[in-house]
Amino acid sequence: MTRGDIESRGAGERSADSTPGTERTPRVAAARKLLRRAGRDRAGRFLVEGAQAVREALAAVTVHELFVTAVAAERHPELVEAAERSGARVSPVTDKAAAGLSETVTPQGIVAVCDLLDVPVATALAGVPGFVTVCDGISDPGNVGTVIRVADAAGCDAVLLAGDTVDPHNGKAVRASTGSVFHLPLARDRDAPAVVEMCRAAGLTTLVADGHGEVDLHDPAVTPTLAGPVAWILGSEAHGPSAAVHAAADHRVRVPIHGRAESLNLATAAAICLYATVGARAGVAPQLSPARD
Amino acid sequence: MTRGDIESRGAGERSADSTPGTERTPRVAAARKLLRRAGRDRAGRFLVEGAQAVREALAAVTVHELFVTAVAAERHPELVEAAERSGARVSPVTDKAAAGLSETVTPQGIVAVCDLLDVPVATALAGVPGFVTVCDGISDPGNVGTVIRVADAAGCDAVLLAGDTVDPHNGKAVRASTGSVFHLPLARDRDAPAVVEMCRAAGLTTLVADGHGEVDLHDPAVTPTLAGPVAWILGSEAHGPSAAVHAAADHRVRVPIHGRAESLNLATAAAICLYATVGARAGVAPQLSPARD
Repeated sequence: MTRGDIESRGAGERSADSTPGTERTPRVAAARKLLRRAGRDRAGRFLVEGAQAVREALAAVTVHELFVTAVAAERHPELVEAAERSGARVSPVTDKAAAGLSETVTPQGIVAVCDLLDVPVATALAGVPGFVTVCDGISDPGNVGTVIRVADAAGCDAVLLAGDTVDPHNGKAVRASTGSVFHLPLARDRDAPAVVEMCRAAGLTTLVADGHGEVDLHDPAVTPTLAGPVAWILGSEAHGPSAAVHAAADHRVRVPIHGRAESLNLATAAAICLYATVGARAGVAPQLSPARD
Repeated sequence: MTRGDIESRGAGERSADSTPGTERTPRVAAARKLLRRAGRDRAGRFLVEGAQAVREALAAVTVHELFVTAVAAERHPELVEAAERSGARVSPVTDKAAAGLSETVTPQGIVAVCDLLDVPVATALAGVPGFVTVCDGISDPGNVGTVIRVADAAGCDAVLLAGDTVDPHNGKAVRASTGSVFHLPLARDRDAPAVVEMCRAAGLTTLVADGHGEVDLHDPAVTPTLAGPVAWILGSEAHGPSAAVHAAADHRVRVPIHGRAESLNLATAAAICLYATVGARAGVAPQLSPARD
């Protein structure tokens, strides 16, 4: 598949046919290839499913095409109108065709073809970043989406997806992020130690979240570091960050376990680490969050 | 089903038949009823699946019966032996019978029938509790299990499952807890405001985690409260804590959102709140976690 297969501005096809496309319609079949990473990387595009996510996409990124069932078009006329206004092609499709573009159990009948979101690492780190999240080898798309959501909530400047981390454009990752993939810069780079180096070069202290880290997250001596410019590095569910990333980072920080649990899952550990930075900043800069008495 | 149906000490059945039980064997069929809440509550027992969870169960609770396939028995002889030593009946079963007792895609072939874990709320709050988690109407079993895991890791004294919260003996909840259901007292009570009252009577400050709470989690004025005896109350995924619980609690505390995310998911919000208490205690009691320089 080339970009041309799903290009929206071919001669003579400016106005979409009003006969609903089926799963055999070439444009629908081409879009279905975007359900897989290879198809997305080849086309430079991905699918965004559901009214809320399509709304976020239209506000944030170039939407090339909106596939919509009759029922969904009637339910969300404002999205159809916004897509048309933005220059996207609006393509009516059958329920079955929409289901074929969907990865959910109850498809909403509205799917957008969008440009991939990621930018080069250097672009994501441009300006003066103060707070960055790095994923190193996170394999579950739900986890990647949840980490992006938490990073957004915590006020991160960017999320860098390093090593073998799953594609954030994966449908499950997009859904788990509940729109946050559209809110902050994302970058992908397979060379995780190089990403850590770039973070350090950008002035960030690089902290690996590690159950066996030599520093306790709640050690008062760590608070000033947490409150400064930091990149939190979160490793794979099974193995944690790679040895090379361990070696490249400034500190290995452990979330203390006070009970008998063996560990925390990735999403909860990520939330605890990122919000420890939020808390440290509130503590050292009380004007952001004044004491009440 | 009565308790007798799966009782292990009936006359004449002390030594288990060595012919593997099938899914039609009465004891297996009776155990299968424990996959549903009604069956569990009626029998006062639940199923624990997989080698690691069975190991935890044998160490923590009365195990009445261990269903095990030939392959699993060969792989985990120490568990079969421990079950026999504890007085549990060991029942060989076919792969298909074991699969019928399993809720996972790749059953491990080892399933224990255990006494329910929960105790009365008053028992869970006995002694001088300093740190308690209350779930109010959490409906997803994975979330309940994850909250129990985080509460265990944070060092909570008990988890109280109030209102319409899903049964923590649900297989998905047990799995998501990764053994933590066996590590700390669990209590169930449908009357959530009464549970909040009992927490307060036990000397705990009751804090509702609420996106619209009037207090910021990181407000320095909140830290002494977090570091004292507290009960954190976590509400349902969809609606948060009930109005009655809101009214009954001492404070409504919000996790601040600094980016453009609309909210956090329940498990990450729970982790942030519970570990804010861990952090507050480390800060006010630095001897627990001495500064390095």
